[in-house]
Amino acid sequence: MSDRPTAPVPPRLAEWERRTEMPLLVASLAYLAGYTVHVLVPHSTEPWRDVALVLVGLPWLLFAVDYGARLHLSGQGRRFVRTHWLDTLTLLLPPLRPLRVVQLYTRLQLHREQPRLSLHARVMAYAGTSALLLGYTASLAVYQQERGDPDSTIRTFGDSVWWACATLTTVGYGDAVPVTLLGRVIAAGLMACGLALLGAVTGSFSSWLVQVFSQQDEKRPPESE
Amino acid sequence: MSDRPTAPVPPRLAEWERRTEMPLLVASLAYLAGYTVHVLVPHSTEPWRDVALVLVGLPWLLFAVDYGARLHLSGQGRRFVRTHWLDTLTLLLPPLRPLRVVQLYTRLQLHREQPRLSLHARVMAYAGTSALLLGYTASLAVYQQERGDPDSTIRTFGDSVWWACATLTTVGYGDAVPVTLLGRVIAAGLMACGLALLGAVTGSFSSWLVQVFSQQDEKRPPESE
Amino acid sequence: MSDRPTAPVPPRLAEWERRTEMPLLVASLAYLAGYTVHVLVPHSTEPWRDVALVLVGLPWLLFAVDYGARLHLSGQGRRFVRTHWLDTLTLLLPPLRPLRVVQLYTRLQLHREQPRLSLHARVMAYAGTSALLLGYTASLAVYQQERGDPDSTIRTFGDSVWWACATLTTVGYGDAVPVTLLGRVIAAGLMACGLALLGAVTGSFSSWLVQVFSQQDEKRPPESE
Amino acid sequence: MSDRPTAPVPPRLAEWERRTEMPLLVASLAYLAGYTVHVLVPHSTEPWRDVALVLVGLPWLLFAVDYGARLHLSGQGRRFVRTHWLDTLTLLLPPLRPLRVVQLYTRLQLHREQPRLSLHARVMAYAGTSALLLGYTASLAVYQQERGDPDSTIRTFGDSVWWACATLTTVGYGDAVPVTLLGRVIAAGLMACGLALLGAVTGSFSSWLVQVFSQQDEKRPPESE
Repeated sequence: MSDRPTAPVPPRLAEWERRTEMPLLVASLAYLAGYTVHVLVPHSTEPWRDVALVLVGLPWLLFAVDYGARLHLSGQGRRFVRTHWLDTLTLLLPPLRPLRVVQLYTRLQLHREQPRLSLHARVMAYAGTSALLLGYTASLAVYQQERGDPDSTIRTFGDSVWWACATLTTVGYGDAVPVTLLGRVIAAGLMACGLALLGAVTGSFSSWLVQVFSQQDEKRPPESE
Repeated sequence: MSDRPTAPVPPRLAEWERRTEMPLLVASLAYLAGYTVHVLVPHSTEPWRDVALVLVGLPWLLFAVDYGARLHLSGQGRRFVRTHWLDTLTLLLPPLRPLRVVQLYTRLQLHREQPRLSLHARVMAYAGTSALLLGYTASLAVYQQERGDPDSTIRTFGDSVWWACATLTTVGYGDAVPVTLLGRVIAAGLMACGLALLGAVTGSFSSWLVQVFSQQDEKRPPESE
Repeated sequence: MSDRPTAPVPPRLAEWERRTEMPLLVASLAYLAGYTVHVLVPHSTEPWRDVALVLVGLPWLLFAVDYGARLHLSGQGRRFVRTHWLDTLTLLLPPLRPLRVVQLYTRLQLHREQPRLSLHARVMAYAGTSALLLGYTASLAVYQQERGDPDSTIRTFGDSVWWACATLTTVGYGDAVPVTLLGRVIAAGLMACGLALLGAVTGSFSSWLVQVFSQQDEKRPPESE
Repeated sequence: MSDRPTAPVPPRLAEWERRTEMPLLVASLAYLAGYTVHVLVPHSTEPWRDVALVLVGLPWLLFAVDYGARLHLSGQGRRFVRTHWLDTLTLLLPPLRPLRVVQLYTRLQLHREQPRLSLHARVMAYAGTSALLLGYTASLAVYQQERGDPDSTIRTFGDSVWWACATLTTVGYGDAVPVTLLGRVIAAGLMACGLALLGAVTGSFSSWLVQVFSQQDEKRPPESE
């Protein structure tokens, strides 16, 4: 049914990908935890600072090694950079790392034996989780930028999460808004990604609802028609 | 046509569900009325307070009994909790109760003999009514949280309804915004649910409009082509 | 192809509808012009006040007569009220009258000989024009309510149009917002209708774009595949 | 498969269009650069002013000549104005010029030999690039209008870009809003175009995601079903 043939994956690359799935998922979650500690825990508390550094730095190193290994094993050379653009992007832009968590979790699920969710439910779960993780990371990043600014309306991490909610859903109250340049750049990125991801959630929910209602029609006894 | 076989409903469960439909619908509406009285009527007026307590508490008890009975009759054990996640959720989170009103009403309609609306119209009606009921409940809940706060911009129940309208449609003027923690959590919930529900309304309206226009094409005399 | 049989229109009703199309379209436009004059021209200038009254009142009378005549000729009795719900609604709620302009114009086009627009283009044109007319009428109605209020942020008709633009597109800056009860009720109505109509415009534009791009594929010489 | 036959392009027109593609693309980019210089560089700096004038004026002249030549070669006379409405519009409304950049780039791609992106990816790329270019031009135009106004909240070009981001994504914080008449007219235009274009991006992304997930189903070993 698929009209676009995809190149077969070399056996050694497939083997590598299967083996690194679980470590990479753990590394992604460690990165997220490390970034949280880095932003939210005051820098004066000495031990936490080092913990954060390790939790942020080590996963990144792991991702770089994994990227290099897959680039080598794929035998595609420079084409790999383009065909795996999401991997390339998340390597260069750490705040997009959460997208990897979802990707890895999805790949892990492929090997599980139990029946999975329907197509629309999976798209909803994937896009929704990505949006949540992106929103959380953007809250951390914007809070880090804004808390030092005297004109800032984002004073607590709670304000930042509230801002991310209003931004992702495009409600945009405007009671908490980034004012620094870097804060606004992160916000623009969140808008763009969030809009597409939440659009996918909404669209899939709509399709799923139509599907449920049309199944109801079939189950209904036909005598009343 | 349906590719996902659904487990047959045990006859005793089907019997139970048919018999409890009408009482549960009445209980849902009573819950909504009780919650309205609880929030809007001043607590000093003694008789109303007790009325609200009964109207809120009794339906909840009924829902819990119904949930338990269906859990038992289904013979699914713990799987029931997952397959009937909407029932489970509305039992634990009372503000989502209105979704049950719509669900029960839809199920009641299945037994009526008269011809029903078209597929898209039903999706629109279901999602639209759910959004309205959710918006109304969220208005009550946010008003309850916000009216006591000195910094609040939501001072009357009218302000709260106005806020809910602007939030559900993602317009988000920002002239009335929750400032308390719990108020913001409820708001975030309303954004997420409302976005999906209104997306379904919009999508179905769009599909319905396309359908109407393409039917117009068929009716048109072909000599002008 | 249509799976929902529609009742055949009685010949005398069809005749009536064909004959009244043009007068009703003129009456709709007159109503819109009269309402504009009524709101925007100061009431002290005597002649205009009477002009507005005639332009608003006469079309309404005409619509009522037309509604009664069609109700009688259809021979459907009370069912007519439900099957022609848009006509019923626009008769009772004058601000929704602009929807009739679009409806009548669309019906007129059915008799024209020249080739019409494609399906998606027509849905876009219909929904877009409806949204524009609704936004214009809502601007007038909200301006009429808000201009007298001391707390109002909508001081000129330009502010009101700007508010309607920001509301219809769900941008919702919040720099101009209705504060009166009736102003907010009109705003909520505009949000609901506008959201659905603009959703249809966006959806059809998206479908049309996909269609254009897939036609491009077919035209392309196949040697480069 | 296409049900709407398009008129065959006269050979001399096709020849003209193929030859002018690259010069017109360069002219479009020069126009954009010239407009940027015109708005952002202070007018006192003499040489830049003339550079901007040349960069803005010359491309416009080129577009007018091209439009006239194609109008003549098509042999369609006045019908050309209607069938090429986007060309007509961008000739009269310079801020819409960026849409030509995307159109020309798309046409150029048709002649390239290498395999192109999938349908949904191309719609996303087209609509996304158009939205970006429109947003950039609108930022320039609104900044030009607003910077002189004493009540303006758009004080730097950065504010203007931030406003354009919040408007295109319909977030609409309201912290930076045009207050002049012409600024608001441009804003309304951006809202309308941006809404449709970003709706196409979101819709295509959603479709693409569903496609990716359904391909995943096919690749999956069937033993676990």
